[in-house]
Amino acid sequence: MNLQTSLSADPAAVSPEALVEQLARDGRAAQRVLARISDADKAGALRAAAKALRAAESEILAANAQDIAAGEAKGLSAALLDRLRLDAGRLAGIADAVEQVAALPDPVGEVISADERPNGLKLSRVRVPIGLIGIIYESRPNVTADAAALCLRSGNAVMLRGGTEALHSNRAIRAALAAGLESVGIPAAAIQLVPTQDRAVVGAMLTAAGLIDMIVPRGGKSLVARVQADARVPVLAHLDGICHTYVHAAADADMARKLTVNAKLRRTGICGAMETLLLDTQFPESASVVGGLIEAGCEVRGDARAQALDSRVLPASGEDWDTEYLDAVLSVAVVDGLDCAIEHIAAHSSHHTDAIVTDDAEAAERFLDEVDSAIVMVNASSQFADGGEFGLGAEIGIATGRLHARGPVALEGLTTYKWQVRGSGQARP
Amino acid sequence: MNLQTSLSADPAAVSPEALVEQLARDGRAAQRVLARISDADKAGALRAAAKALRAAESEILAANAQDIAAGEAKGLSAALLDRLRLDAGRLAGIADAVEQVAALPDPVGEVISADERPNGLKLSRVRVPIGLIGIIYESRPNVTADAAALCLRSGNAVMLRGGTEALHSNRAIRAALAAGLESVGIPAAAIQLVPTQDRAVVGAMLTAAGLIDMIVPRGGKSLVARVQADARVPVLAHLDGICHTYVHAAADADMARKLTVNAKLRRTGICGAMETLLLDTQFPESASVVGGLIEAGCEVRGDARAQALDSRVLPASGEDWDTEYLDAVLSVAVVDGLDCAIEHIAAHSSHHTDAIVTDDAEAAERFLDEVDSAIVMVNASSQFADGGEFGLGAEIGIATGRLHARGPVALEGLTTYKWQVRGSGQARP
Repeated sequence: MNLQTSLSADPAAVSPEALVEQLARDGRAAQRVLARISDADKAGALRAAAKALRAAESEILAANAQDIAAGEAKGLSAALLDRLRLDAGRLAGIADAVEQVAALPDPVGEVISADERPNGLKLSRVRVPIGLIGIIYESRPNVTADAAALCLRSGNAVMLRGGTEALHSNRAIRAALAAGLESVGIPAAAIQLVPTQDRAVVGAMLTAAGLIDMIVPRGGKSLVARVQADARVPVLAHLDGICHTYVHAAADADMARKLTVNAKLRRTGICGAMETLLLDTQFPESASVVGGLIEAGCEVRGDARAQALDSRVLPASGEDWDTEYLDAVLSVAVVDGLDCAIEHIAAHSSHHTDAIVTDDAEAAERFLDEVDSAIVMVNASSQFADGGEFGLGAEIGIATGRLHARGPVALEGLTTYKWQVRGSGQARP
Repeated sequence: MNLQTSLSADPAAVSPEALVEQLARDGRAAQRVLARISDADKAGALRAAAKALRAAESEILAANAQDIAAGEAKGLSAALLDRLRLDAGRLAGIADAVEQVAALPDPVGEVISADERPNGLKLSRVRVPIGLIGIIYESRPNVTADAAALCLRSGNAVMLRGGTEALHSNRAIRAALAAGLESVGIPAAAIQLVPTQDRAVVGAMLTAAGLIDMIVPRGGKSLVARVQADARVPVLAHLDGICHTYVHAAADADMARKLTVNAKLRRTGICGAMETLLLDTQFPESASVVGGLIEAGCEVRGDARAQALDSRVLPASGEDWDTEYLDAVLSVAVVDGLDCAIEHIAAHSSHHTDAIVTDDAEAAERFLDEVDSAIVMVNASSQFADGGEFGLGAEIGIATGRLHARGPVALEGLTTYKWQVRGSGQARP
């Protein structure tokens, strides 16, 4: 029995806590089925889901048209409407992405370590799914398929709670995915969409410790902040991407000019975009790096020494060092060497991604060792902070927490392990 | 500057939150020093701490005598007083344990995975410390040294909050450990003891997200339950050890008799002790297994089919299947095969340690795969659930959470990782 169908009729008839509990019990039961099936069958289920998405094109686009019409009536911005809008090409891209996840290797079952004790006990640590993962996200309907595919490929069930603006699109996408799973014998409850937009249900998900094993928020800073503040369930997320690039005294000047423009301006709205540039006092080409950024269209706010490099540099306030602009704006400080750069980063970084540009191998290794961020880079653009670029095939998000998983989190990050012990009758002395 | 000294004069003069924040800032600064020193220097610091513990024997035993006198005046039970009491032998054992941790290999710096992307970016995931770890524990003063040693060996700073009964002992042990660290140039704030027994400080530790990276509660169920309920900081713990042993149809009868007695009765008060025995209807020697347990001094409470095996079996109530007795009491159910056993365990296990006894390799592998507990065993006593027995050298605790670490948690479980990226000027297309 799948509550998804029965409850969507009248989800308001039960309390938010009871609704989440019932959905979670159904999802956990479906997850136990997933945990028993083979790698090939999990991949096959995702291919069936992708096929069902393609087959449901007209239903999904019709549902999306409803959301777009409602969004226009509500006066959503053009940018939001664009993120919400699906067409045949975008839907094909969503189905392709599901097939790409199907083609990734399954992390479940990997033997992380193995040992044999002197008494003959054989120990192994084996990778297993996390269980039931809750995803709380905003208006982009592609997240419905992407997140569901990553969770399923790693043996997890998923409880999705998308934004109100995308409600009809999400329901149509979820229905297609579920139909695909059922066609190969996997319970539809492995992919659930919360059947109400009641905000109290989000609160009930966040506090459902023991029922939901992990929450992944996908969206803007206010969503992530609320989830982190209220959750009793472990959360995989990052709040800010205040990413630094430090141009060391021994940096190659051409590389410094190229990487700073790319790190700041390739796309300014992503979490891996550089927000603060640190220029070493001993680096001779600082003025041309700053000039290059300004000429490429960037507003530069600097400390006194950065202002001295170029008259177009505006004065930075104290807040600038802790600001994620997500725009063509950059704070620039001049620092007295590697230790000062590391100290500035320790004080102001959000521990997402920080980079050094240098030809000095020793300085590079010290930066890699001593900067305590989820991702540390040498001679590369911080915009590479991405699961796809890291070869993970996809990502569920980028994590800056210290436990379990950091950086781009994909299939492996959606698993944990258990210890398996094989004995031959050992009683403990 | 180390607040430990200044604040212990009058910790009541600041709010619990301000106290924890100041201690955490000092601890985090000390951790950054630890993160930079070599493996050999960390080991040397622990050997110096062990030496300082031995040198401070008379101070520590005098402080312990104060605690014992206060405990006797307060009417503590003989068992509690015994756990609290130190003598020269026990103190030498504590110093030995610190030296054993010094001798363990350092997990920090281990390359977990490495890859090179087609664009030449070199990626590696490298193990790093978690940061500042809070330990909240009850009356055993040896935890002060054990927990501090494990945290330091893995590059973490530690904030200790021990029980009131052991206050003077803990202060003396902490002072000796800190003196040892300082003798080799490591800030004493790497090992801090909360300088007040104000219970509000525990609340402030539990909610110090961003200041304390992880909390480990060490003590009884009520302490762990409170920590799990109130913490905003991630918690590494287990609440219950409701461990099952399933005697399969194809079990060796002698092994089944030996392992069930050992799993239940070797020590009844530890978390790995068996609390429920599942006997397969097709196992022919069930009566002798039950008889053996009763004759070894165990009270057996069973379902109707277990009662039919032996007239001395008492009736089990519904609650028995969810009870951790920590005593010479056992619940016994007769089950119809492997699937029923797995289902019973899924419904009632606390996901700590569960075991099967069988000579059927296929049944064993299904049990190992399908039982979702931190530790799953074949043909061995569940009392082996222990970091020392697993060859980890020691343990900070046993974790039943699904994120980060499960089962016995030792040095490696006290670390996380970061991604290191080595480029040659790659800008992201």
